Amino acid sequence: MSDQKKIAVLGGGSWATAIVKMLSENLETVGWYMRSESAIEHIKENNHNPKYLRAADVYAHQLNLSSDINSIVQEYNVLIFAIPSAFLMSELAKLNLPLKDKIIFSAIKGIVPETGLIVGEHFHEKHNVPLDNIGVITGPCHAEEVAMERLSYLTIASQNEENAKAMSLCLDSWYIKTKISDDIIGTEYAAMLKNIYAVAAGIAHGLGYGDNFQSVLMSNAIREMKRFIKKVHKMKRNINNSAYLGDLLVTGYSVFSRNRQFGNMIGKGYTVKSAQMEMSMIAEGYYATKSAYKIKEENGANTPIITTVYNVLYDNKDAKKEFKKLTDKLD
Amino acid sequence: MSDQKKIAVLGGGSWATAIVKMLSENLETVGWYMRSESAIEHIKENNHNPKYLRAADVYAHQLNLSSDINSIVQEYNVLIFAIPSAFLMSELAKLNLPLKDKIIFSAIKGIVPETGLIVGEHFHEKHNVPLDNIGVITGPCHAEEVAMERLSYLTIASQNEENAKAMSLCLDSWYIKTKISDDIIGTEYAAMLKNIYAVAAGIAHGLGYGDNFQSVLMSNAIREMKRFIKKVHKMKRNINNSAYLGDLLVTGYSVFSRNRQFGNMIGKGYTVKSAQMEMSMIAEGYYATKSAYKIKEENGANTPIITTVYNVLYDNKDAKKEFKKLTDKLD
Repeated sequence: MSDQKKIAVLGGGSWATAIVKMLSENLETVGWYMRSESAIEHIKENNHNPKYLRAADVYAHQLNLSSDINSIVQEYNVLIFAIPSAFLMSELAKLNLPLKDKIIFSAIKGIVPETGLIVGEHFHEKHNVPLDNIGVITGPCHAEEVAMERLSYLTIASQNEENAKAMSLCLDSWYIKTKISDDIIGTEYAAMLKNIYAVAAGIAHGLGYGDNFQSVLMSNAIREMKRFIKKVHKMKRNINNSAYLGDLLVTGYSVFSRNRQFGNMIGKGYTVKSAQMEMSMIAEGYYATKSAYKIKEENGANTPIITTVYNVLYDNKDAKKEFKKLTDKLD
Repeated sequence: MSDQKKIAVLGGGSWATAIVKMLSENLETVGWYMRSESAIEHIKENNHNPKYLRAADVYAHQLNLSSDINSIVQEYNVLIFAIPSAFLMSELAKLNLPLKDKIIFSAIKGIVPETGLIVGEHFHEKHNVPLDNIGVITGPCHAEEVAMERLSYLTIASQNEENAKAMSLCLDSWYIKTKISDDIIGTEYAAMLKNIYAVAAGIAHGLGYGDNFQSVLMSNAIREMKRFIKKVHKMKRNINNSAYLGDLLVTGYSVFSRNRQFGNMIGKGYTVKSAQMEMSMIAEGYYATKSAYKIKEENGANTPIITTVYNVLYDNKDAKKEFKKLTDKLD
């Protein structure tokens, strides 16, 4: 990562746009791949993304925009993926270049539905990217507040400290503070699990549980997250650091979280299908639940919240009854 | 605590009313001391407290109401104090009976301003109540949600497990779940410290910091709380249990918290005095800040958030500048 100019962002959504904005504070040019030609044209003329995070200024003269993923991958050696996990496989299928020599940062916060792997693992196992060349960019960070230049903290995780530091410098600015971590597995699982807990918080809200219960749910969720991640990748970590607890809180307490909205509809009696249709998208937490459930079945972690959400979303169990049972397992 | 009928609540506010309601689910009669004769008359006629927590049904036929603190203390051997800490000393001054043979539970969540002691310590040191006879009733629990019979979890802490269990049984009901703890010092300090962090959250909000920052602040607050309590009373505890983290979250994320409101006004530029006048009361966190600052000065705990709030509230420092400095100490 010696040449900071060679960083590209892949993805056209809110979080991708926020990352481009953050990088633009430090870099002369940023590569940016997105599918939509019309969005690219709009950005070139208006200096903002037409559909996502419109409030964020992104200046065309700093951007190397392209709707051709191969040309961006060819030209840049550091790639930040910020494509929703549901579309990652189909985007990667377009590649006719190898990724194994690239430095890959995941800003995806989810699980690849087709493989059930967290994104870092997916790049490692399916694209032969060495673990040392993989990193994670994680919050707590709503993209909307980046657009407003409200102070936010990011954690940049990589086994390769030099890469983490270099990326950290590229993202740091007067409204972004960064810290580095070597817990790439833990931070990525935390980012994924928090979406499940946000779904749980939404279901509880939809069922009529109040703030007292939500605080107990979050208090149990962070303990459950700690147990889960410890089973997956045991190392010394403080689960109350911002990348874990902070990320859980910003999502679990956000009424804007799509995962929480999705859960809320389930709690109010929508079926999974009708909630998904109503939202015209699928919440990351939906896929995360299935994968996390499978993983905890394999490693034996005690995760009553994940199990409850799984039973409701995938086993067609009654949300009210399942949460009633859950309340006896929390403390 | 063999005779469950001998429990009385002292205090006429929302939290006292909520506790009376919870006890009424299990006990035939509950003693209830409050200063206001007119409130007592109102409750006798209307089965609800006229000024606080009006939505909670409390049935006069189950209550032994009195505005004479001595008659209640005379008649009952288990006393639950739910008087705001600012008024505790003046109420206790009315006593002409000793407390040393009573079982005392504190539901006060604050510090006694005149002595700088947490309530349990105050009863122990100033009224010769043996530590074994002292307990704490703690949330996370907004009284308003008790009135609505929304599921809430309480922690009952006492060194005397039998007393804790007995009280726990008296409070438990279809909408209240209880757990016991032997960490009377830790739970009481947590309940007090969380008010300071709620003031901090309010100041940050008033200054224009957003949700991303709040989650970082709370993530740092729980780590700071852990360090502080460890210095005061070292024992094995999981700071992420509901009595610590849950209580922090329900207060820190509540827009109804008086401590948060107070902080918010400070953040918006009110002086301490004008904020207090505007609110026509003093937030518990105001006193807690002074006491906690003194304690951390003595024991050397690293508490940047408490120090920042202290500097703003007591040292007349500029909130904006102090929080700017604080942001560099968080991660």
